Amino acid sequence: MLSKTYTKYIQSLHHKKFRDADNAFIAEGSKVVMELLQSPVFSCQQVLGLQQWMQENEMLIRTTYRGPLQVIENFELEKITALTTPNQVLAVFKKLKPIPVDPKGKISLVLDTIQDPGNLGTIIRIADWFGVEAIICSDNCTDMYNPKVVQSTMGSLGRVNVVYTNIADWLKKNEHIKIYAAALNGKKISQLKGITEGIVVIGNESKGISDEVMQLCAEKITIPKTGHAESLNAAVATGIILSHMVQ
Amino acid sequence: MLSKTYTKYIQSLHHKKFRDADNAFIAEGSKVVMELLQSPVFSCQQVLGLQQWMQENEMLIRTTYRGPLQVIENFELEKITALTTPNQVLAVFKKLKPIPVDPKGKISLVLDTIQDPGNLGTIIRIADWFGVEAIICSDNCTDMYNPKVVQSTMGSLGRVNVVYTNIADWLKKNEHIKIYAAALNGKKISQLKGITEGIVVIGNESKGISDEVMQLCAEKITIPKTGHAESLNAAVATGIILSHMVQ
Repeated sequence: MLSKTYTKYIQSLHHKKFRDADNAFIAEGSKVVMELLQSPVFSCQQVLGLQQWMQENEMLIRTTYRGPLQVIENFELEKITALTTPNQVLAVFKKLKPIPVDPKGKISLVLDTIQDPGNLGTIIRIADWFGVEAIICSDNCTDMYNPKVVQSTMGSLGRVNVVYTNIADWLKKNEHIKIYAAALNGKKISQLKGITEGIVVIGNESKGISDEVMQLCAEKITIPKTGHAESLNAAVATGIILSHMVQ
Repeated sequence: MLSKTYTKYIQSLHHKKFRDADNAFIAEGSKVVMELLQSPVFSCQQVLGLQQWMQENEMLIRTTYRGPLQVIENFELEKITALTTPNQVLAVFKKLKPIPVDPKGKISLVLDTIQDPGNLGTIIRIADWFGVEAIICSDNCTDMYNPKVVQSTMGSLGRVNVVYTNIADWLKKNEHIKIYAAALNGKKISQLKGITEGIVVIGNESKGISDEVMQLCAEKITIPKTGHAESLNAAVATGIILSHMVQ
Protein backbone atom coordinates (compact mmCIF):
# COMPACT_ATOMS: atom_id res chain seq x y z
CA MET A 1 0.00 0.00 0.00
CA LEU A 2 1.39 3.34 -1.11
CA SER A 3 1.29 5.97 1.67
CA LYS A 4 -0.49 9.27 1.13
CA THR A 5 2.74 11.14 1.82
CA TYR A 6 4.73 9.20 -0.77
CA THR A 7 1.89 9.51 -3.32
CA LYS A 8 1.97 13.28 -2.84
CA TYR A 9 5.77 13.31 -3.07
CA ILE A 10 5.71 11.55 -6.47
CA GLN A 11 2.92 13.78 -7.73
CA SER A 12 5.01 16.80 -6.73
CA LEU A 13 7.80 15.53 -9.03
CA HIS A 14 5.52 16.17 -12.01
CA HIS A 15 6.51 19.81 -11.46
CA LYS A 16 9.92 21.38 -12.08
CA LYS A 17 9.88 23.42 -8.88
CA PHE A 18 9.71 20.28 -6.75
CA ARG A 19 12.13 18.32 -8.94
CA ASP A 20 14.64 21.12 -8.39
CA ALA A 21 13.96 21.30 -4.65
CA ASP A 22 14.24 17.53 -4.15
CA ASN A 23 16.91 16.95 -6.82
CA ALA A 24 14.84 14.01 -8.09
CA PHE A 25 12.69 13.02 -11.09
CA ILE A 26 10.43 10.19 -12.22
CA ALA A 27 10.81 7.80 -15.16
CA GLU A 28 8.00 5.56 -16.40
CA GLY A 29 7.50 2.49 -18.54
CA SER A 30 9.46 -0.72 -18.69
CA LYS A 31 11.93 0.27 -21.40
CA VAL A 32 12.92 3.65 -19.93
CA VAL A 33 13.06 2.49 -16.30
CA MET A 34 15.20 -0.57 -17.16
CA GLU A 35 17.64 1.53 -19.20
CA LEU A 36 18.07 4.07 -16.41
CA LEU A 37 18.45 1.33 -13.76
CA GLN A 38 21.23 -0.20 -15.84
CA SER A 39 22.89 3.15 -16.54
CA PRO A 40 26.09 3.68 -14.54
CA VAL A 41 25.32 7.37 -13.98
CA PHE A 42 21.84 7.28 -12.43
CA SER A 43 21.06 6.53 -8.83
CA CYS A 44 17.57 5.13 -8.17
CA GLN A 45 15.61 5.84 -4.97
CA GLN A 46 12.58 3.62 -5.44
CA VAL A 47 10.94 1.37 -8.03
CA LEU A 48 7.13 1.04 -7.97
CA GLY A 49 5.63 -1.56 -10.29
CA LEU A 50 2.57 -3.68 -10.88
CA GLN A 51 2.86 -7.21 -9.47
CA GLN A 52 3.23 -8.98 -12.79
CA TRP A 53 5.89 -6.57 -14.04
CA MET A 54 7.82 -6.89 -10.79
CA GLN A 55 7.75 -10.70 -10.98
CA GLU A 56 8.99 -10.69 -14.56
CA ASN A 57 11.75 -8.14 -13.99
CA GLU A 58 12.95 -8.50 -10.37
CA MET A 59 15.91 -10.76 -11.17
CA LEU A 60 17.17 -8.43 -13.87
CA ILE A 61 16.62 -5.32 -11.73
CA ARG A 62 18.59 -6.88 -8.88
CA THR A 63 21.70 -7.23 -11.06
CA THR A 64 22.20 -3.45 -10.83
CA TYR A 65 19.88 -2.11 -8.09
CA ARG A 66 19.76 -2.93 -4.37
CA GLY A 67 17.23 -0.30 -3.19
CA PRO A 68 13.52 -0.57 -2.40
CA LEU A 69 11.07 -2.29 -4.77
CA GLN A 70 7.39 -1.74 -4.10
CA VAL A 71 4.51 -3.65 -5.66
CA ILE A 72 1.58 -1.31 -6.28
CA GLU A 73 -1.96 -1.70 -7.56
CA ASN A 74 -3.27 -0.32 -10.84
CA PHE A 75 -5.27 2.41 -9.06
CA GLU A 76 -2.14 3.53 -7.21
CA LEU A 77 -0.13 3.75 -10.43
CA GLU A 78 -2.93 5.81 -11.93
CA LYS A 79 -2.59 8.29 -9.05
CA ILE A 80 1.15 8.82 -9.44
CA THR A 81 1.66 8.56 -13.21
CA ALA A 82 2.36 11.59 -15.39
CA LEU A 83 1.40 9.66 -18.54
CA THR A 84 -2.03 9.58 -20.13
CA THR A 85 -1.79 5.78 -20.21
CA PRO A 86 0.26 4.50 -17.24
CA ASN A 87 2.73 1.79 -18.17
CA GLN A 88 3.40 -0.89 -15.49
CA VAL A 89 6.26 0.78 -13.62
CA LEU A 90 7.42 4.14 -12.28
CA ALA A 91 10.78 4.83 -10.64
CA VAL A 92 12.26 7.78 -8.78
CA PHE A 93 15.84 8.76 -9.66
CA LYS A 94 18.28 11.40 -8.43
CA LYS A 95 19.01 14.15 -10.96
CA LEU A 96 22.50 14.22 -12.48
CA LYS A 97 25.15 16.85 -11.85
CA PRO A 98 25.73 18.67 -15.16
CA ILE A 99 29.28 18.22 -16.50
CA PRO A 100 30.95 21.26 -18.15
CA VAL A 101 31.05 20.80 -21.95
CA ASP A 102 34.28 21.03 -23.95
CA PRO A 103 33.22 21.13 -27.62
CA LYS A 104 36.77 20.61 -28.96
CA GLY A 105 37.13 17.77 -31.46
CA LYS A 106 33.49 16.76 -31.49
CA ILE A 107 30.00 17.75 -32.64
CA SER A 108 27.82 19.44 -30.01
CA LEU A 109 24.22 20.62 -30.12
CA VAL A 110 22.93 23.95 -28.81
CA LEU A 111 19.15 24.35 -28.35
CA ASP A 112 17.64 27.83 -28.33
CA THR A 113 14.26 27.84 -26.52
CA ILE A 114 13.03 24.35 -27.42
CA GLN A 115 9.70 24.23 -25.59
CA ASP A 116 7.98 21.02 -26.54
CA PRO A 117 8.96 18.17 -24.16
CA GLY A 118 8.49 15.55 -26.89
CA ASN A 119 10.90 17.46 -29.12
CA LEU A 120 13.59 17.75 -26.42
CA GLY A 121 13.34 14.06 -25.54
CA THR A 122 13.49 13.05 -29.21
CA ILE A 123 16.53 15.33 -29.76
CA ILE A 124 18.34 13.66 -26.82
CA ARG A 125 17.59 10.25 -28.39
CA ILE A 126 18.86 11.49 -31.80
CA ALA A 127 22.06 12.82 -30.19
CA ASP A 128 22.60 9.41 -28.60
CA TRP A 129 22.09 7.69 -31.98
CA PHE A 130 24.68 9.89 -33.71
CA GLY A 131 27.20 9.84 -30.86
CA VAL A 132 26.73 13.51 -29.93
CA GLU A 133 27.90 13.64 -26.32
CA ALA A 134 26.58 17.01 -25.18
CA ILE A 135 23.52 19.23 -25.59
CA ILE A 136 23.68 22.82 -24.34
CA CYS A 137 20.15 24.15 -23.68
CA SER A 138 19.20 27.78 -23.25
CA ASP A 139 17.87 28.44 -19.75
CA ASN A 140 14.34 28.77 -21.14
CA CYS A 141 14.28 25.36 -22.83
CA THR A 142 11.81 22.87 -21.34
CA ASP A 143 13.23 20.89 -18.39
CA MET A 144 15.10 17.68 -19.32
CA TYR A 145 13.51 15.98 -16.29
CA ASN A 146 9.94 16.77 -17.36
CA PRO A 147 8.24 13.31 -17.40
CA LYS A 148 7.38 13.67 -21.11
CA VAL A 149 11.00 14.46 -21.96
CA VAL A 150 12.24 11.46 -19.97
CA GLN A 151 9.65 9.31 -21.76
CA SER A 152 10.65 10.46 -25.27
CA THR A 153 14.38 9.90 -24.68
CA MET A 154 13.64 6.13 -24.57
CA GLY A 155 16.52 5.65 -22.13
CA SER A 156 19.14 7.86 -23.81
CA LEU A 157 19.15 10.30 -20.88
CA GLY A 158 22.15 8.67 -19.21
CA ARG A 159 24.28 8.71 -22.35
CA VAL A 160 24.03 12.39 -23.34
CA ASN A 161 25.29 15.24 -21.15
CA VAL A 162 22.52 17.88 -21.11
CA VAL A 163 23.35 21.26 -19.53
CA TYR A 164 21.36 24.48 -19.12
CA THR A 165 23.07 27.84 -19.45
CA ASN A 166 23.07 31.26 -21.12
CA ILE A 167 23.82 29.96 -24.61
CA ALA A 168 24.97 33.32 -26.01
CA ASP A 169 27.67 33.51 -23.31
CA TRP A 170 28.60 29.88 -23.87
CA LEU A 171 28.90 30.35 -27.65
CA LYS A 172 31.09 33.45 -27.15
CA LYS A 173 33.47 31.39 -25.02
CA ASN A 174 33.66 28.77 -27.78
CA GLU A 175 34.01 30.97 -30.86
CA HIS A 176 37.14 29.06 -31.93
CA ILE A 177 34.85 26.13 -32.82
CA LYS A 178 32.76 26.54 -35.99
CA ILE A 179 29.14 27.35 -35.15
CA TYR A 180 26.41 26.25 -37.60
CA ALA A 181 22.87 27.68 -37.45
CA ALA A 182 19.89 25.65 -38.73
CA ALA A 183 18.06 28.22 -40.84
CA LEU A 184 15.89 28.60 -43.95
CA ASN A 185 18.37 30.41 -46.20
CA GLY A 186 21.78 28.78 -45.71
CA LYS A 187 24.20 26.35 -47.32
CA LYS A 188 22.65 23.03 -48.40
CA ILE A 189 23.25 20.27 -45.86
CA SER A 190 24.37 17.91 -48.64
CA GLN A 191 27.57 20.01 -48.71
CA LEU A 192 28.31 19.07 -45.10
CA LYS A 193 30.15 15.77 -44.92
CA GLY A 194 32.58 14.09 -42.60
CA ILE A 195 32.49 16.95 -40.11
CA THR A 196 34.14 15.92 -36.85
CA GLU A 197 34.10 19.23 -34.95
CA GLY A 198 31.36 21.84 -34.77
CA ILE A 199 28.49 23.32 -32.82
CA VAL A 200 25.00 23.04 -34.34
CA VAL A 201 22.38 25.52 -33.12
CA ILE A 202 18.68 24.54 -33.39
CA GLY A 203 16.05 27.22 -32.82
CA ASN A 204 12.62 27.45 -31.25
CA GLU A 205 9.72 25.51 -32.83
CA SER A 206 8.00 28.61 -34.18
CA LYS A 207 10.44 31.51 -33.89
CA GLY A 208 13.71 29.81 -34.89
CA ILE A 209 17.05 31.09 -33.55
CA SER A 210 17.03 34.41 -31.66
CA ASP A 211 18.87 37.36 -33.26
CA GLU A 212 21.46 37.53 -30.47
CA VAL A 213 22.41 33.88 -30.96
CA MET A 214 22.24 34.01 -34.78
CA GLN A 215 24.90 36.75 -34.80
CA LEU A 216 27.33 34.36 -33.11
CA CYS A 217 26.94 31.68 -35.79
CA ALA A 218 29.59 31.34 -38.51
CA GLU A 219 27.41 29.59 -41.09
CA LYS A 220 23.74 29.05 -41.82
CA ILE A 221 22.78 25.57 -42.98
CA THR A 222 19.52 24.51 -44.63
CA ILE A 223 17.57 21.36 -45.44
CA PRO A 224 16.51 21.99 -49.06
CA LYS A 225 12.75 21.95 -49.55
CA THR A 226 11.28 20.36 -52.67
CA GLY A 227 7.64 20.49 -51.50
CA HIS A 228 5.43 23.03 -49.77
CA ALA A 229 5.45 22.61 -45.94
CA GLU A 230 6.38 25.85 -44.19
CA SER A 231 8.83 24.19 -41.82
CA LEU A 232 10.02 20.89 -40.38
CA ASN A 233 9.60 19.71 -36.79
CA ALA A 234 12.67 20.78 -34.73
CA ALA A 235 13.61 17.21 -33.78
CA VAL A 236 13.27 15.98 -37.36
CA ALA A 237 15.47 18.86 -38.58
CA THR A 238 18.09 17.99 -35.94
CA GLY A 239 18.15 14.36 -37.08
CA ILE A 240 18.48 15.28 -40.75
CA ILE A 241 21.32 17.78 -40.14
CA LEU A 242 23.32 15.39 -37.94
CA SER A 243 22.87 12.52 -40.42
CA HIS A 244 24.47 14.62 -43.16
CA MET A 245 27.30 15.99 -40.99
CA VAL A 246 28.52 12.65 -39.69
CA GLN A 247 28.24 10.65 -42.93
CA MET B 1 -24.20 30.24 -27.63
CA LEU B 2 -23.23 26.74 -28.75
CA SER B 3 -26.17 24.31 -28.70
CA LYS B 4 -25.94 21.09 -26.69
CA THR B 5 -26.56 19.07 -29.83
CA TYR B 6 -23.72 20.73 -31.76
CA THR B 7 -21.39 20.45 -28.75
CA LYS B 8 -22.07 16.72 -28.64
CA TYR B 9 -21.63 16.43 -32.41
CA ILE B 10 -18.15 18.00 -32.25
CA GLN B 11 -17.19 15.86 -29.24
CA SER B 12 -18.25 12.79 -31.22
CA LEU B 13 -15.72 13.75 -33.93
CA HIS B 14 -12.92 13.09 -31.42
CA HIS B 15 -13.63 9.41 -32.21
CA LYS B 16 -12.90 7.61 -35.48
CA LYS B 17 -16.23 5.76 -35.52
CA PHE B 18 -18.17 9.03 -35.67
CA ARG B 19 -15.70 10.70 -38.07
CA ASP B 20 -16.29 7.78 -40.43
CA ALA B 21 -20.07 7.85 -39.97
CA ASP B 22 -20.31 11.63 -40.52
CA ASN B 23 -17.48 11.88 -43.06
CA ALA B 24 -16.14 14.88 -41.09
CA PHE B 25 -13.21 15.82 -38.82
CA ILE B 26 -12.05 18.72 -36.66
CA ALA B 27 -8.94 20.89 -36.99
CA GLU B 28 -7.73 23.22 -34.24
CA GLY B 29 -5.43 26.19 -33.80
CA SER B 30 -4.98 29.27 -35.94
CA LYS B 31 -2.18 27.96 -38.16
CA VAL B 32 -3.80 24.60 -39.04
CA VAL B 33 -7.34 25.98 -39.49
CA MET B 34 -6.16 28.83 -41.74
CA GLU B 35 -4.11 26.46 -43.92
CA LEU B 36 -7.03 24.07 -44.37
CA LEU B 37 -9.46 26.92 -45.08
CA GLN B 38 -7.13 28.15 -47.82
CA SER B 39 -6.55 24.66 -49.22
CA PRO B 40 -8.38 24.05 -52.50
CA VAL B 41 -9.21 20.46 -51.54
CA PHE B 42 -10.97 20.85 -48.19
CA SER B 43 -14.57 21.88 -47.68
CA CYS B 44 -15.35 23.52 -44.33
CA GLN B 45 -18.71 23.14 -42.55
CA GLN B 46 -18.27 25.50 -39.62
CA VAL B 47 -15.64 27.71 -37.95
CA LEU B 48 -15.92 28.27 -34.18
CA GLY B 49 -13.52 30.83 -32.70
CA LEU B 50 -12.99 33.10 -29.74
CA GLN B 51 -14.16 36.68 -30.33
CA GLN B 52 -10.71 38.22 -30.59
CA TRP B 53 -9.46 35.58 -33.02
CA MET B 54 -12.57 35.96 -35.16
CA GLN B 55 -12.15 39.74 -35.32
CA GLU B 56 -8.50 39.46 -36.32
CA ASN B 57 -9.08 36.78 -38.97
CA GLU B 58 -12.56 37.26 -40.40
CA MET B 59 -11.47 39.27 -43.44
CA LEU B 60 -8.83 36.70 -44.39
CA ILE B 61 -11.22 33.78 -43.79
CA ARG B 62 -13.83 35.37 -46.03
CA THR B 63 -11.45 35.39 -49.00
CA THR B 64 -11.88 31.62 -49.27
CA TYR B 65 -14.83 30.59 -47.06
CA ARG B 66 -18.49 31.62 -47.25
CA GLY B 67 -19.97 29.24 -44.63
CA PRO B 68 -20.98 29.82 -40.98
CA LEU B 69 -18.64 31.54 -38.51
CA GLN B 70 -19.59 31.26 -34.85
CA VAL B 71 -18.07 33.24 -32.01
CA ILE B 72 -17.77 31.06 -28.91
CA GLU B 73 -16.68 31.60 -25.31
CA ASN B 74 -13.59 30.11 -23.73
CA PHE B 75 -15.65 27.64 -21.67
CA GLU B 76 -17.36 26.43 -24.84
CA LEU B 77 -14.05 25.90 -26.64
CA GLU B 78 -12.85 23.92 -23.64
CA LYS B 79 -15.85 21.59 -24.01
CA ILE B 80 -15.28 20.83 -27.68
CA THR B 81 -11.47 20.83 -27.95
CA ALA B 82 -9.45 17.63 -28.33
CA LEU B 83 -6.24 19.45 -27.30
CA THR B 84 -4.85 19.65 -23.77
CA THR B 85 -4.52 23.41 -24.24
CA PRO B 86 -7.28 24.73 -26.54
CA ASN B 87 -6.06 27.21 -29.12
CA GLN B 88 -8.51 29.99 -30.11
CA VAL B 89 -10.30 28.25 -32.97
CA LEU B 90 -11.79 24.92 -34.03
CA ALA B 91 -13.26 24.11 -37.43
CA VAL B 92 -15.21 21.19 -38.85
CA PHE B 93 -14.19 19.94 -42.30
CA LYS B 94 -15.42 17.22 -44.65
CA LYS B 95 -13.03 14.29 -45.04
CA LEU B 96 -11.32 13.91 -48.41
CA LYS B 97 -11.97 11.16 -50.94
CA PRO B 98 -8.75 9.12 -51.18
CA ILE B 99 -7.19 9.26 -54.67
CA PRO B 100 -5.64 6.03 -56.04
CA VAL B 101 -1.83 6.27 -55.94
CA ASP B 102 0.34 5.68 -59.00
CA PRO B 103 3.94 5.43 -57.71
CA LYS B 104 5.50 5.67 -61.20
CA GLY B 105 8.22 8.30 -61.59
CA LYS B 106 8.12 9.56 -58.00
CA ILE B 107 8.97 8.70 -54.41
CA SER B 108 6.11 7.32 -52.30
CA LEU B 109 5.93 6.37 -48.62
CA VAL B 110 4.35 3.22 -47.22
CA LEU B 111 3.64 3.10 -43.47
CA ASP B 112 3.31 -0.27 -41.76
CA THR B 113 1.31 0.04 -38.51
CA ILE B 114 2.35 3.55 -37.44
CA GLN B 115 0.33 3.97 -34.24
CA ASP B 116 1.39 7.25 -32.66
CA PRO B 117 -0.74 10.14 -33.97
CA GLY B 118 2.13 12.63 -33.47
CA ASN B 119 4.36 10.43 -35.63
CA LEU B 120 1.82 10.13 -38.44
CA GLY B 121 1.15 13.88 -38.46
CA THR B 122 4.88 14.65 -38.47
CA ILE B 123 5.46 12.16 -41.32
CA ILE B 124 2.74 13.89 -43.41
CA ARG B 125 4.49 17.24 -42.76
CA ILE B 126 7.88 15.71 -43.74
CA ALA B 127 6.38 14.27 -46.95
CA ASP B 128 5.04 17.73 -47.79
CA TRP B 129 8.50 19.28 -47.16
CA PHE B 130 10.24 16.83 -49.51
CA GLY B 131 7.53 16.87 -52.18
CA VAL B 132 6.35 13.31 -51.58
CA GLU B 133 2.82 13.33 -52.97
CA ALA B 134 1.40 10.11 -51.51
CA ILE B 135 1.48 8.08 -48.30
CA ILE B 136 0.03 4.56 -48.33
CA CYS B 137 -0.92 3.51 -44.78
CA SER B 138 -1.64 -0.03 -43.64
CA ASP B 139 -5.26 -0.40 -42.49
CA ASN B 140 -4.10 -0.58 -38.87
CA CYS B 141 -2.20 2.73 -38.90
CA THR B 142 -3.68 5.44 -36.69
CA ASP B 143 -6.42 7.51 -38.40
CA MET B 144 -5.17 10.51 -40.41
CA TYR B 145 -8.17 12.52 -39.12
CA ASN B 146 -7.36 11.90 -35.43
CA PRO B 147 -7.20 15.45 -33.96
CA LYS B 148 -3.58 14.92 -32.85
CA VAL B 149 -2.57 13.84 -36.36
CA VAL B 150 -4.29 16.88 -37.89
CA GLN B 151 -2.52 19.09 -35.31
CA SER B 152 0.96 17.67 -36.03
CA THR B 153 0.63 18.02 -39.81
CA MET B 154 0.70 21.80 -39.32
CA GLY B 155 -1.52 22.24 -42.35
CA SER B 156 0.17 19.79 -44.74
CA LEU B 157 -2.90 17.53 -44.79
CA GLY B 158 -4.29 19.07 -47.96
CA ARG B 159 -1.03 18.71 -49.89
CA VAL B 160 -0.29 14.99 -49.37
CA ASN B 161 -2.59 12.21 -50.59
CA VAL B 162 -2.95 9.76 -47.67
CA VAL B 163 -4.70 6.43 -48.39
CA TYR B 164 -5.42 3.36 -46.24
CA THR B 165 -5.21 -0.10 -47.73
CA ASN B 166 -3.77 -3.60 -47.41
CA ILE B 167 -0.16 -2.57 -48.03
CA ALA B 168 1.07 -6.08 -48.88
CA ASP B 169 -1.46 -6.29 -51.73
CA TRP B 170 -0.62 -2.75 -52.82
CA LEU B 171 3.13 -3.48 -52.88
CA LYS B 172 2.57 -6.69 -54.90
CA LYS B 173 0.71 -4.65 -57.52
CA ASN B 174 3.65 -2.23 -57.69
CA GLU B 175 6.57 -4.62 -57.73
CA HIS B 176 7.97 -2.98 -60.88
CA ILE B 177 8.91 0.05 -58.72
CA LYS B 178 11.93 -0.43 -56.42
CA ILE B 179 10.80 -0.97 -52.81
CA TYR B 180 13.16 0.16 -50.02
CA ALA B 181 12.71 -1.01 -46.41
CA ALA B 182 13.94 1.11 -43.48
CA ALA B 183 15.79 -1.48 -41.37
CA LEU B 184 18.72 -1.88 -39.01
CA ASN B 185 20.98 -3.99 -41.22
CA GLY B 186 20.82 -2.56 -44.74
CA LYS B 187 22.71 -0.38 -47.19
CA LYS B 188 23.89 2.97 -45.78
CA ILE B 189 21.58 5.84 -46.69
CA SER B 190 24.57 7.94 -47.79
CA GLN B 191 24.71 5.65 -50.84
CA LEU B 192 21.20 6.75 -51.87
CA LYS B 193 21.35 9.93 -53.90
CA GLY B 194 19.27 11.59 -56.57
CA ILE B 195 16.61 8.88 -56.46
CA THR B 196 13.53 10.00 -58.38
CA GLU B 197 11.44 6.82 -58.26
CA GLY B 198 10.92 4.41 -55.39
CA ILE B 199 8.70 3.25 -52.56
CA VAL B 200 10.04 3.65 -49.01
CA VAL B 201 8.51 1.42 -46.32
CA ILE B 202 8.63 2.62 -42.69
CA GLY B 203 7.74 0.15 -39.94
CA ASN B 204 5.95 0.23 -36.60
CA GLU B 205 7.48 2.25 -33.74
CA SER B 206 8.55 -0.80 -31.74
CA LYS B 207 8.20 -3.84 -34.03
CA GLY B 208 9.48 -2.42 -37.31
CA ILE B 209 8.26 -3.81 -40.65
CA SER B 210 6.18 -7.01 -40.56
CA ASP B 211 7.70 -10.16 -42.12
CA GLU B 212 5.05 -10.34 -44.85
CA VAL B 213 5.81 -6.79 -45.99
CA MET B 214 9.60 -7.12 -45.58
CA GLN B 215 9.59 -10.03 -48.05
CA LEU B 216 8.21 -7.71 -50.72
CA CYS B 217 11.05 -5.18 -50.33
CA ALA B 218 13.92 -5.17 -52.84
CA GLU B 219 16.49 -3.44 -50.62
CA LYS B 220 17.03 -2.73 -46.92
CA ILE B 221 18.35 0.75 -46.10
CA THR B 222 19.86 1.91 -42.81
CA ILE B 223 20.76 5.13 -41.01
CA PRO B 224 24.26 4.35 -39.68
CA LYS B 225 24.54 4.60 -35.89
CA THR B 226 27.66 6.10 -34.34
CA GLY B 227 26.30 6.26 -30.78
CA HIS B 228 24.26 3.99 -28.54
CA ALA B 229 20.49 4.62 -28.83
CA GLU B 230 18.59 1.47 -29.66
CA SER B 231 16.47 3.10 -32.35
CA LEU B 232 15.31 6.38 -33.83
CA ASN B 233 11.79 7.81 -33.70
CA ALA B 234 9.84 6.67 -36.83
CA ALA B 235 9.16 10.22 -38.04
CA VAL B 236 12.81 11.25 -37.55
CA ALA B 237 13.97 8.17 -39.49
CA THR B 238 11.54 9.03 -42.33
CA GLY B 239 12.91 12.58 -42.52
CA ILE B 240 16.53 11.41 -42.57
CA ILE B 241 15.93 8.78 -45.28
CA LEU B 242 14.01 11.18 -47.57
CA SER B 243 16.63 13.91 -47.13
CA HIS B 244 19.35 11.54 -48.42
CA MET B 245 17.25 10.13 -51.29
CA VAL B 246 16.25 13.46 -52.78
CA GLN B 247 19.59 15.29 -52.43
